[in-house]
Amino acid sequence: MKVVALAGGVGGAKLADGLAQILLADLTVVVNTGDDFDHLGLRICPDLDTVCYTLAGLANPLMGWGRMDETWHAIETVASLGGPDWFNLGDRDMGTHLERTRRLRMGQPLSEITRVFCQAWGIESLVLPMSNDPTPTIVLTDQGELPFQEYFVHQKCIPKVTGFRFEGSSRAVPAPGVPDAIREADLIVVCPSNPWVSIDPILAVGSIRASLQPKTVIAVSPIIGGKTVKGPAGKMFTELGFESSAKAVAGHYGKLLTGFVLDQVDGDDEDKIHSSSLEVLVTQTMMKTPEDRKQLAADVLSFGYKILSDKIDRKEK
Amino acid sequence: MKVVALAGGVGGAKLADGLAQILLADLTVVVNTGDDFDHLGLRICPDLDTVCYTLAGLANPLMGWGRMDETWHAIETVASLGGPDWFNLGDRDMGTHLERTRRLRMGQPLSEITRVFCQAWGIESLVLPMSNDPTPTIVLTDQGELPFQEYFVHQKCIPKVTGFRFEGSSRAVPAPGVPDAIREADLIVVCPSNPWVSIDPILAVGSIRASLQPKTVIAVSPIIGGKTVKGPAGKMFTELGFESSAKAVAGHYGKLLTGFVLDQVDGDDEDKIHSSSLEVLVTQTMMKTPEDRKQLAADVLSFGYKILSDKIDRKEK
Repeated sequence: MKVVALAGGVGGAKLADGLAQILLADLTVVVNTGDDFDHLGLRICPDLDTVCYTLAGLANPLMGWGRMDETWHAIETVASLGGPDWFNLGDRDMGTHLERTRRLRMGQPLSEITRVFCQAWGIESLVLPMSNDPTPTIVLTDQGELPFQEYFVHQKCIPKVTGFRFEGSSRAVPAPGVPDAIREADLIVVCPSNPWVSIDPILAVGSIRASLQPKTVIAVSPIIGGKTVKGPAGKMFTELGFESSAKAVAGHYGKLLTGFVLDQVDGDDEDKIHSSSLEVLVTQTMMKTPEDRKQLAADVLSFGYKILSDKIDRKEK
Repeated sequence: MKVVALAGGVGGAKLADGLAQILLADLTVVVNTGDDFDHLGLRICPDLDTVCYTLAGLANPLMGWGRMDETWHAIETVASLGGPDWFNLGDRDMGTHLERTRRLRMGQPLSEITRVFCQAWGIESLVLPMSNDPTPTIVLTDQGELPFQEYFVHQKCIPKVTGFRFEGSSRAVPAPGVPDAIREADLIVVCPSNPWVSIDPILAVGSIRASLQPKTVIAVSPIIGGKTVKGPAGKMFTELGFESSAKAVAGHYGKLLTGFVLDQVDGDDEDKIHSSSLEVLVTQTMMKTPEDRKQLAADVLSFGYKILSDKIDRKEK
């Protein structure tokens, strides 16, 4: 079974890792690059790095982002000299940004750089940025428009959200490999990432959303028991006038979905979400251990396989 | 006594440190920036950093360059991703380059950035780049023209030297503070740095050499017993057709000098160098310990004081 996973940061990377352990080269992860930004003269791609570090087994297990066995000497020096230290960068992580920035300046596209890095890190699955064109996510708030990292890291998600803008996304071209991977995929998995600022930016790139319409698409809810495991997704749903719930996530993706996976603690919502056009799976979605990642991936793949088999059965009848 | 020291890398930084310990704010160190270059998107100023780290007590005592308690995680990552690692950069050191590069991009001049850094590092003496204008040193060799770090670090000084070029130096403007410091100085000390690629680049900037002509200038030989303590100065003298000796150093600086300091092991050369226009001091110039630096600085200052007193005596007669 060929699978394309759409992923943002920490939660998405965990499920992508579970899928990668099972599918190896049959998995393509398309990663949000709307969070990417320039800082200290470096091009930083937080979601891409989180996915790659996680799949390579290099991620910091406590923080979820950044590298394990990390030191912080460069950013400490920057801070001691009066420079900006609101975006924390470890030394090993800094090496990734330095080399990526060097290659970008040489004219290498981000997708090619990511391929080289994944090879160096021994990642068997294909990891692709959603686009080589920058499409910065702008958060519309009660304090004005804020670039994503300004909202997310510098202002700690405190401003109240009123909407989002993905600059240049309609004109952006999906990265080489993304259209083929989607076309060839049996199943699309929307990872438990923030729908507003991790998945929507991917869907907004060029023709990506349209290309997903005919596919079998399963989303895993990032909201468990009304809360997000990490990050501001729940807060965003509330501030935008929705309830913070798995049901709201399913509603957000709407007709894009063929299947929806929610946690056992939200099992009561199953009947409210299930419809003639949307299959629902209730399982354990909280990923605390590496085994949890693989188990959830296996559950999602079985669920997808069942939906695909049913489709074939219906056609044959 | 107000003193201006001209300095390059490790040897120069050591004497500058000895002078700084005695003179504090009465010392201005004018540092070679001909070695400066762009690497990994960072502006790197090797001599400026060596002088500042040394004066701040932050220098790596074993290597002479770079920071103490250093880690190498960023450059290790760059290397693991296929990037260039021929110029070794520690993580703490990387922080200096990141913040300097950030400030340069904001439009701050190098001299102002150096002032801010020296303040952060608690350096009481004034450290100035020779110029805010880039004047890259090009080494002319039997293998063609090589940018300095390409010759010095990447090719390990192996190509045979035929000459040097200091690009743009005649049009370059001395950094703010340099002309005033020279005018107000009682004594100019040419540190035991490489005459060809550390001191000559300073002398070549705009009107700096001319402004030194009326001053009392003492040079300390970087060549001891026919050899340089560190670096390719001796090799350069030989390849350019001179003998590698303290005498050759004195000859190189010529009429610029009022006094010359050479090591005890070269004491036999004293009579050959001494002339009606050049005073000579023989003393221990090898700086192995922090005490050596201060002792040599004290010897140089006493020697300078004697020369200045004699001048006044002669005028009064």
